[in-house]
Amino acid sequence: MTTTAIIDSLAGTGASIKAMVDDWARFSEAPDKLTRVFLSAEHKACAEAVIAAMEQAGMTVRIDAIGNVVGRYEGATPDAKTLVTGSHIDTVRDAGAYDGNLGVALPIACVADLNARGKRLPFAVEIIAFGDEEGVRFPTTLSGSRAVAGTVDPAILTLRDSEGTSLAEALRHFGCDPDRIADEARKPEDILAFVELHIEQGPVLEAEGLPVGVVTAINGASRFALSLEGMAGHAGTVPMHLRKDALSGAAEMIGAVERLGQSEDGLVATVGRIAAGPGAVNVIPGRVDFTLDIRAPEDGQREAAMAALQTTLAEIAVRRHLKLTVERLYDEGAVACDPALMTEMDKAIERQGIRVHRLPSGAGHDAMALATLCPIAMFFLRCGGGISHNPLESITAEDTEIGARVFLDFLEHLDPAVLSR
Amino acid sequence: MTTTAIIDSLAGTGASIKAMVDDWARFSEAPDKLTRVFLSAEHKACAEAVIAAMEQAGMTVRIDAIGNVVGRYEGATPDAKTLVTGSHIDTVRDAGAYDGNLGVALPIACVADLNARGKRLPFAVEIIAFGDEEGVRFPTTLSGSRAVAGTVDPAILTLRDSEGTSLAEALRHFGCDPDRIADEARKPEDILAFVELHIEQGPVLEAEGLPVGVVTAINGASRFALSLEGMAGHAGTVPMHLRKDALSGAAEMIGAVERLGQSEDGLVATVGRIAAGPGAVNVIPGRVDFTLDIRAPEDGQREAAMAALQTTLAEIAVRRHLKLTVERLYDEGAVACDPALMTEMDKAIERQGIRVHRLPSGAGHDAMALATLCPIAMFFLRCGGGISHNPLESITAEDTEIGARVFLDFLEHLDPAVLSR
Repeated sequence: MTTTAIIDSLAGTGASIKAMVDDWARFSEAPDKLTRVFLSAEHKACAEAVIAAMEQAGMTVRIDAIGNVVGRYEGATPDAKTLVTGSHIDTVRDAGAYDGNLGVALPIACVADLNARGKRLPFAVEIIAFGDEEGVRFPTTLSGSRAVAGTVDPAILTLRDSEGTSLAEALRHFGCDPDRIADEARKPEDILAFVELHIEQGPVLEAEGLPVGVVTAINGASRFALSLEGMAGHAGTVPMHLRKDALSGAAEMIGAVERLGQSEDGLVATVGRIAAGPGAVNVIPGRVDFTLDIRAPEDGQREAAMAALQTTLAEIAVRRHLKLTVERLYDEGAVACDPALMTEMDKAIERQGIRVHRLPSGAGHDAMALATLCPIAMFFLRCGGGISHNPLESITAEDTEIGARVFLDFLEHLDPAVLSR
Repeated sequence: MTTTAIIDSLAGTGASIKAMVDDWARFSEAPDKLTRVFLSAEHKACAEAVIAAMEQAGMTVRIDAIGNVVGRYEGATPDAKTLVTGSHIDTVRDAGAYDGNLGVALPIACVADLNARGKRLPFAVEIIAFGDEEGVRFPTTLSGSRAVAGTVDPAILTLRDSEGTSLAEALRHFGCDPDRIADEARKPEDILAFVELHIEQGPVLEAEGLPVGVVTAINGASRFALSLEGMAGHAGTVPMHLRKDALSGAAEMIGAVERLGQSEDGLVATVGRIAAGPGAVNVIPGRVDFTLDIRAPEDGQREAAMAALQTTLAEIAVRRHLKLTVERLYDEGAVACDPALMTEMDKAIERQGIRVHRLPSGAGHDAMALATLCPIAMFFLRCGGGISHNPLESITAEDTEIGARVFLDFLEHLDPAVLSR
């Protein structure tokens, strides 16, 4: 089987994959916008459509104990390890169609192509449609991928949604047996890798003029709540040199946050919320509360950046006679993608005549949870305007076809031995 | 009569003046905080206390057609012009005791001293307790001082308070005849000047270590509503160089506003309100709305500053690919104090052995309205921490005594001829 033959057999598949995902978008809580939360009736309907597509692709399919749809395409030999792929089919509220769903549909098309050609790989392929990546319904997230990784906390079964339904009850209603979740944990020795394809949800590939990219890491993130206390005063009667203007102080700090983010590749730093009090046109703000979100592909980079920023912010506060309070809200470590898999992905992209671009993932993905089980890697597909979590989310059939060619090429060329080096 | 004699006769008057104003603070809408709005029952009760104090000081007193208390102490000759002083006795909600009220009580004590000594000046002295400086009850302000200046718009009589009472009805209920407001307009040829004493409502005199200061001008003010539109995005997935972060843009602009205010004496510039949307910790702000308040003692200075700032802000917006919208909300021209009166005030302060400090008024005052009728001037008295419009507003008996000595010294030394030069 030559590369040329593969390409030919996928002609038109971009449009079919896109049409499949567009079709799934009808499985929604409301007809006019896409909302499909974990273990809902529309999640079940979508899962059934996924099952049908997987079966048509020659896979054996089941719904596991946590509500994941698991399709399996056996390898060339019974003792072959398993390469797991897939993504999530739950959505945020008023979502776009491609976030998660594309990473289920595209591999199904690739397996369908293998199956049509009677081709078996030196590893089994499992495609999992995870059900709980967005964490919209219950106060938990990644429970599907964590169950597979064997890291799900049984305590989450008692968590309740806004209507008082527990996760255990919802699972039973979905047709799952929550008592068997622990059985879904895979053995590391059985799993070759987890490879996820996902829309980028950012503007980098579009800016680079590239349909696909290789993810280097899922960025670690830290979030902070900051407050600055100065002295409120009359905007007319307090001369500039006698002010303790909390908003002018916050403005200088926001500038420092931006410069920090710009200072190093991969680092991003954002002030997303701000509130200034008392909040009148003619009153000098005496207090400002704002947030800080810092992400980086490496924890050491993120920690060094935070330490440098904390020093800068403290200097600004002291110089301006403001009281700065910093509360750390959240910390999530970075998850690195496997270098050997990244190299194989680079090669698959090059074989399709496309320039290789590597980029970190700023958003979280199921791959994060799988990283405790096996090597992980991710492909990103370009999306329009970098827009996601929004009905305006878009991809093209052309990019999708290129994504499918790259993904199938990657699968067909992957030598399991590269992962044991 | 020597200066020494004046000083002696005022011994202890600071405490008495302060006690008088503290006593008036009981005329309030609520017992636990001071709120005394225009033409309310507590305004009437306070007006009656003012009348009693004025009568005790040897003045003839009336309530005029707009609800001002007008006390008159005749001059040495019947054809003498009139020097008008006074301030307002209405308050904001949850007010301090001294804002306005001190400028009524202190001149009463000075006239009482003149009267006790049988001293007449080469001009009559009128003390007016204006009723509508704060503009809390009706959507109008300075109607008392505007009536005296002859600039009140009769249309304000139909304005209604939040309970639906018209200004005309409230005036009648107060015992006034709104049809006679026009008769309150003074003839410019009869009025020598208007001189107001007021607490500073700012921190300058405290920082200078001075009990009193001479006001150079009531600052002009302009207010703007600004909005910045950029592009909202995911705080993790959009690299810094692809962002159009409206809050980072606003932060740079707030820095420019602050530097502008610091660039020239007398100028102040404030961003008092800010709102950033969508307003989530992990979303790059796509839109920011904020306000700008610029004040200066001279209109030319304020206008030049605004023009320079507008250029700077436009440059920032262009460089950052943000859409800037600027809406002018409000413009009030500066009112200069009379140079000859300022010189006489300087001399009175020097004669008390106090260093002269001149400063602009950042807040508006009744003197603004009187400026269309006659030369105006203002003394500021130091207040604690620059705090005003707040129950924590404070003055000391010592400063009040110095203020009374300076004010009386000014009155006794004022030669009407300095104003005709």
